[in-house]
Amino acid sequence: ESKVPPYATTNIGVAGFVLNEKNEVLVVQERNNRRVGWKLPGGLANLGEDIPQTAAREVFEETGIRTEFESLVAFRQMHNLNFGRSDLYFICRLKPLTFEIVMGEDEISACQWMDLRTYVNSNAHPMNRLIGELCLDSAAELKEWACTSMESTVYSGRTFKLYHPKQLGPSAM
Amino acid sequence: ESKVPPYATTNIGVAGFVLNEKNEVLVVQERNNRRVGWKLPGGLANLGEDIPQTAAREVFEETGIRTEFESLVAFRQMHNLNFGRSDLYFICRLKPLTFEIVMGEDEISACQWMDLRTYVNSNAHPMNRLIGELCLDSAAELKEWACTSMESTVYSGRTFKLYHPKQLGPSAM
Repeated sequence: ESKVPPYATTNIGVAGFVLNEKNEVLVVQERNNRRVGWKLPGGLANLGEDIPQTAAREVFEETGIRTEFESLVAFRQMHNLNFGRSDLYFICRLKPLTFEIVMGEDEISACQWMDLRTYVNSNAHPMNRLIGELCLDSAAELKEWACTSMESTVYSGRTFKLYHPKQLGPSAM
Repeated sequence: ESKVPPYATTNIGVAGFVLNEKNEVLVVQERNNRRVGWKLPGGLANLGEDIPQTAAREVFEETGIRTEFESLVAFRQMHNLNFGRSDLYFICRLKPLTFEIVMGEDEISACQWMDLRTYVNSNAHPMNRLIGELCLDSAAELKEWACTSMESTVYSGRTFKLYHPKQLGPSAM
C-alpha cells in the first residue's frame, strides 16, 4: 500500500521583504483586500518554483522592482484554507537591484517605499511586527537562512534546494 | 479570476533528529528502500498536521520513541515527484522522552541508537552529513528555529504557527 496521499496537501505562498539603502521597505496594498492595509508584496508559488524564484517573480509582477534572494526570515503554517488545503507562507529577505516602482495594477492598488520603523510601529499584525523586528536586528548572519543547491543521491542526476542557517552551510563543512 | 490554483502543489515530509544524552541519534532502515541505508525516522504529513505533530507521530510509529519538539534544523525543497507534485522535507530536532525502541515493523526493518559522530562520518549523503554537523554545532540557540502559535487577524478566531529563529521570538519583543 502506497503511503503517498493521492492529492497534495499544501500550497506555498512567498512574500518579499525588500529593504533599500535608506532603510525603507517595499509595501503594497492589494486591490481586492484593502482592509489588510500595507503588506509585503508576494503571492502563491507556481508548480515547480523554488521559494526564491516565487519571491522574485511576485515582487516584480506587483512592484516592477528587480531583486535577488538574500535569506529566509520566517515562515507560517496554516490549515483548512482554500479547498481544505494547508498553506506555508515564507518571508524572504530580498536585495533590490532596481528602485523605480512600476505597479502591477491587476492586483495592486498602491505601492511605495516606507520607512522600516514606521512600517513596524504602525503595523497592527503581530506577525508583521515580528518580521520587521527580525529584519531590524543586527545579528543578521546568526539568524538568516541560506538556500543551497545539492545533488540528490536518491534520484540520480536531480538536484534539490536545502535551506539552512547561513553561517553553517555546506561550504563551512 | 481567482489566483488560487485548483489543486495544491506540495506534499510535506518531516524527519526527526532525536538525540539522547549519550549523543546517540535515533536511526532506521526502511523495509522498502534498503539501499538508502540508515536514515532519520519520518514520513509524510497528514492533511492539517503541523510540522512538529508530524515529526512526533512518525517517529513514534516507526520507533516507539515518544518525543517533544525542540527546533527546526533545516528543510529541503524538491520538484516533480509523485503525481508531478513538489515536496518540502523538514528536519526537526526532537527531545526523546522515552528510550526503549519498539520498531514499527510495517515500514521499518531495523532501528537503533547510533553514535552521532559515527552517523555523520559514515553517511554518504551530503545533506545528512550537513544535518549532523548542524546538530553537533555548539551555537545551537543562534541557529535553531522555534514554532509559536499566533492569532490570525485576517481569519477571525483562527490561529497559525510561525516558525522563526528561537532567540528572536514574540516573547523577546
